[in-house]
Amino acid sequence: MTILDGKKISNQIKDEIAEEVKKIIDDGEKVPHLAAVIVGNDGASLTYVGSKVRACERVGFESTMVRMSNTTSEVELLDKIEELNEDDNIDGFIVQLPLPPQINTQKVLLAVDPDKDVDGFHPMNFGKMALDMSTFIPATPFGILELIERYGVETQGKHTVVIGRSHIVGRPMSILMGRKAFPGNSTVTVTHSRTKNIEEITRQADIIISALGVPNFLKADMVKDDVVIIDVGITRVPDETRERGYRITGDVDFENVSKKASFITPVPGGVGPMTIAMLLKNTLLARERHLRQA
Amino acid sequence: MTILDGKKISNQIKDEIAEEVKKIIDDGEKVPHLAAVIVGNDGASLTYVGSKVRACERVGFESTMVRMSNTTSEVELLDKIEELNEDDNIDGFIVQLPLPPQINTQKVLLAVDPDKDVDGFHPMNFGKMALDMSTFIPATPFGILELIERYGVETQGKHTVVIGRSHIVGRPMSILMGRKAFPGNSTVTVTHSRTKNIEEITRQADIIISALGVPNFLKADMVKDDVVIIDVGITRVPDETRERGYRITGDVDFENVSKKASFITPVPGGVGPMTIAMLLKNTLLARERHLRQA
Repeated sequence: MTILDGKKISNQIKDEIAEEVKKIIDDGEKVPHLAAVIVGNDGASLTYVGSKVRACERVGFESTMVRMSNTTSEVELLDKIEELNEDDNIDGFIVQLPLPPQINTQKVLLAVDPDKDVDGFHPMNFGKMALDMSTFIPATPFGILELIERYGVETQGKHTVVIGRSHIVGRPMSILMGRKAFPGNSTVTVTHSRTKNIEEITRQADIIISALGVPNFLKADMVKDDVVIIDVGITRVPDETRERGYRITGDVDFENVSKKASFITPVPGGVGPMTIAMLLKNTLLARERHLRQA
Repeated sequence: MTILDGKKISNQIKDEIAEEVKKIIDDGEKVPHLAAVIVGNDGASLTYVGSKVRACERVGFESTMVRMSNTTSEVELLDKIEELNEDDNIDGFIVQLPLPPQINTQKVLLAVDPDKDVDGFHPMNFGKMALDMSTFIPATPFGILELIERYGVETQGKHTVVIGRSHIVGRPMSILMGRKAFPGNSTVTVTHSRTKNIEEITRQADIIISALGVPNFLKADMVKDDVVIIDVGITRVPDETRERGYRITGDVDFENVSKKASFITPVPGGVGPMTIAMLLKNTLLARERHLRQA
């Protein structure tokens, strides 16, 4: 059994990006610049954006955190996005979700210039992905592909079962794993809340990608021997033995499932750390794309 | 066993659209206008475009066929598309594929204004579909949804197996059948050329949507009792008993599979006729959308 070590791989990727940035600086060129817009004071959102800013510092990117108050109007946010779209100094930016209720999230995501949409949430980029065109792949799916690729997990002709159909993980992963590419070329089944007898389907899977958000949902008797497990679940479970009062738990009963698996991601330390690394990678790609267009 | 009669349903839809057009005329408003661009002299393409123009006439739409020579350059075609994008008189248009080799198809499809893209092939529209937003659904998948809906075929919690992953049928159908909607809410498996033991998967299916293009591929021993069969295959098979010298054959061994099926589409007369009806429906939707925007 091999652990798919997202912490290690994400550090490798950050090191590779930092090398690229050094070359950029040596060439006397502008380093990549990521901006993050955050509206309101949600604690988790501030933590996420804080990590993204720190990751930028670590690899040598410029970063800008745009903080807006909880009472920001939709028009004010759209104006800010327009400003970021037109700012040649910014290569890519993200709008941290969720947004306060007075703002229409869909309208906001549609306002982001697709060429700066390093989260890959704009329909234009999502559509390009679904049509096998070059684009920004959303960070979490991109991170899963990278883990699979760097560990050389075989995907062609395998049966991949995706649990969950969210726009951020389930749906893009089901598209990506079925593409004529590596990683890809899997037979893909998407399961969700309306799926009956899910265990009959998971037992057939060579690869399971679970993005359900139900702690310990996937048990050992639901998988076959040598299964590959990608656990995207991140749920806070109360735990008094931890200083923070909780621990992060995935969708998979790791202790028992790992005994049957050939590859498995831990939680934490699996898919989670990959997400920020791939956001940085998308920002680097955005900068290269803008250079080619200039 | 019930035949999913695409010929009958497509005629119903055309009648409904013709009624709408009558109301539009009674209100003294402009009728929907569809344009079709065809480059070169490919016989099948000319036949398809001819049918589309005749369908427009039947429902009372205006239509324009733009014929360009086989030696048209990419720039000339892009100029023509720009002209159609800006022509307020045209509600929607299609560029008939395939295009001659000197023209980059992807570039052409990207040049079509998404608001006039009644084929639903633009990544912006494909992305909106994949993100559950309102958009133009490509005509063939849209026609399949309509058949399922009008015959009241149950899809929720069912296992739908899609054979083929093309951009035009397989991939959009796999997304649409998994959506939180009716038709939809199916557990969806996508199979393709790299799938192993496909018969093990098709035997589990409650619904099979086959878009492979291999005559009589799906045999009776590959399906379970009461399966729902949507056959999207259209292959010309030589047949000297026919005046044209060939007959149109689907992916399914209709004679034997129909004995086990609860619902089944014939070929011809199943999905095929639905496609043009849904192109008309998209054109009507495009006109309504432009009216709202005006």
